[in-house]
Amino acid sequence: MNHRPIVTLTTDFGEGSRYVGAMKGALLAVCPELTIVDISHAVPHQNVLQAAITLVESTPYFPPQTIHVAVIDPGVGTNRRILYAEIDGQRYIGPDNGIFTCLADRAKPSTMRSVENTKLWRCGVSSTFHGRDIMAPVAAHLAAGVEPAEVGPEIDDFIRIPLPQAERVANKIEGEVTEVDSFGNLITNITTEMLADVPRGEETRICCDGHETMGIFAAYGDQPPMTLIALVGSGDKLELAIVDDSAKIMLGVTVGTPLTVEW
Amino acid sequence: MNHRPIVTLTTDFGEGSRYVGAMKGALLAVCPELTIVDISHAVPHQNVLQAAITLVESTPYFPPQTIHVAVIDPGVGTNRRILYAEIDGQRYIGPDNGIFTCLADRAKPSTMRSVENTKLWRCGVSSTFHGRDIMAPVAAHLAAGVEPAEVGPEIDDFIRIPLPQAERVANKIEGEVTEVDSFGNLITNITTEMLADVPRGEETRICCDGHETMGIFAAYGDQPPMTLIALVGSGDKLELAIVDDSAKIMLGVTVGTPLTVEW
Amino acid sequence: MNHRPIVTLTTDFGEGSRYVGAMKGALLAVCPELTIVDISHAVPHQNVLQAAITLVESTPYFPPQTIHVAVIDPGVGTNRRILYAEIDGQRYIGPDNGIFTCLADRAKPSTMRSVENTKLWRCGVSSTFHGRDIMAPVAAHLAAGVEPAEVGPEIDDFIRIPLPQAERVANKIEGEVTEVDSFGNLITNITTEMLADVPRGEETRICCDGHETMGIFAAYGDQPPMTLIALVGSGDKLELAIVDDSAKIMLGVTVGTPLTVEW
Repeated sequence: MNHRPIVTLTTDFGEGSRYVGAMKGALLAVCPELTIVDISHAVPHQNVLQAAITLVESTPYFPPQTIHVAVIDPGVGTNRRILYAEIDGQRYIGPDNGIFTCLADRAKPSTMRSVENTKLWRCGVSSTFHGRDIMAPVAAHLAAGVEPAEVGPEIDDFIRIPLPQAERVANKIEGEVTEVDSFGNLITNITTEMLADVPRGEETRICCDGHETMGIFAAYGDQPPMTLIALVGSGDKLELAIVDDSAKIMLGVTVGTPLTVEW
Repeated sequence: MNHRPIVTLTTDFGEGSRYVGAMKGALLAVCPELTIVDISHAVPHQNVLQAAITLVESTPYFPPQTIHVAVIDPGVGTNRRILYAEIDGQRYIGPDNGIFTCLADRAKPSTMRSVENTKLWRCGVSSTFHGRDIMAPVAAHLAAGVEPAEVGPEIDDFIRIPLPQAERVANKIEGEVTEVDSFGNLITNITTEMLADVPRGEETRICCDGHETMGIFAAYGDQPPMTLIALVGSGDKLELAIVDDSAKIMLGVTVGTPLTVEW
Repeated sequence: MNHRPIVTLTTDFGEGSRYVGAMKGALLAVCPELTIVDISHAVPHQNVLQAAITLVESTPYFPPQTIHVAVIDPGVGTNRRILYAEIDGQRYIGPDNGIFTCLADRAKPSTMRSVENTKLWRCGVSSTFHGRDIMAPVAAHLAAGVEPAEVGPEIDDFIRIPLPQAERVANKIEGEVTEVDSFGNLITNITTEMLADVPRGEETRICCDGHETMGIFAAYGDQPPMTLIALVGSGDKLELAIVDDSAKIMLGVTVGTPLTVEW
């Protein structure tokens, strides 16, 4: 890496929260040459699963060695650990609460450390904002060239949260809606791999909460406006959408709703 | 240009969408030295007219040669083209759906190309997210110094959308509200040029949806709080506002509502 | 300072407002090497007190000499002044409407100037958007190395707004809620200093709008979910929270509500 170091931020602070501003200040105070990139500050409050999905769907697109700081941290100030992880060429800092589960499921972490070296923290650490006082300064020190071994001891174990699993039985896949994007598209846990031998034509029926649609398409524009459509989205997951409208609103469906594919 | 290249983003993904994060990753993966600037991710979903207005009102303020990527793209994955345009010293990438209409009305594009050179795209282009898989990588390659001729062949035609036109008849101008900002100010399509010989005093009456106000002022503070006021806004358009409050809410008026100026 | 200059933005334009994009363009047009950092664009419209709090809680974390531009400016276009201030090692530009009150209460400004040198402004200044036309260009010129003395004459006086003051009478402190964050936490004007000799245990009762809780804790996780908890937050102020939920919603309390601590 011979470009300016990049640090990304993913939090549940809310877009426009001054807490984000304070974190950016704490980053730049240690390493003013940083490029800071906002991934999202709109992760639902304290929703570790949504944070884990956001990280796995966004961070792999960044240049190798990018440092991703994730602060969805309901246990801040308790004895939960803070982790430093290297996964698939990217670097991560966040609380040990399961936030890296999806990433670690895709690729085994090559390094995992407990962030304990207080020399890399801000002076006067609060009990309620470790994003600003610990994670941002540590990320900035790493960006400035501090060796990962400096942040704290290597560890083997870390917390994983249960991820909703899709299952295939004969000619049927049972999954669920795991994410709703701002367009109201319903993203599921049914992957391209699971759909590999599933016919894409009208013989395949997708059902969700009493609504159904036939066939799996490639693009939103493959059906007329206001049509319910199933397609494989940009994260290689099956997705339900209403063309030019919100499936979330039109179907009244949200995260956790079961969905089946039958053929 | 001998400064770091600048790429701006305008999308309808929603503030805090992880799709924005993925696009930034795809940009930096090609050109990590980029300065990325968010213009807005709050363009109303799939509203090409509002996107066209946002671009013409924001992008001209940037340094020459800035690359502006606009992803309001309901036709993603269909056979709609992706355009590269040079207009008034700025550079643009976006779908060919009318998004550049306002810009092209102000200044004839000096170059217009169809983005077709797949060597500049990400490997494994999805059908649903060309912002991440095509537009971001192409923008980053251009920022890194790739010649515009590399992106694809020159073209002459491109899609324009009809823009609501204000009309003058004798001592009357008939226009409409074309935009509502976050303050609730109602911005119209009546330009400073159309108002050049219109008296600014009390003899001029502005009417909108049954509400009226006399005179055209310079600043919001020229009238007392809670007063309906007409003024020329920062984009050189006639604007209706409630001093220290929201005209949108107080008047119940939104985009598309007719408005007249008479004297 | 030998790193790239940093300019932060704090406005009430709303997240996703194209006005923010135009300001960033105006900054980069003067100084394309800038690092621009968004602090918040979600300050409640024209709420100078909330802007003053946002600035004092966020800007001190930045590297010295950072330039902070604050545009909460209901008086734009009237004869209100625009200020340049140096306070506690940071630099500020904003309207003279009280926006720097909290900062100036914490540390006496070492320099205060009236921004009057039109040579540093954009050509064609509007009456409604001095953020874009005056404050951004002046900030960018300063970032590029222009001497502060160039922006305009030194001044002694500037506008302060009344800040809600907490008061201690015997074994009781009377304060109020001054801020609600996006988690729904209720932040007060009762500081750590005021609480220095207050017992933290169950003998201390915190009351707010008919709700009460005993004791002052360190971390949100010190009590079970859905519990009302008092703690000292990351800005060294007493805070009321519902563990893992929103005190704002659960208690129906907002900015301005009185709160007492008794022991």
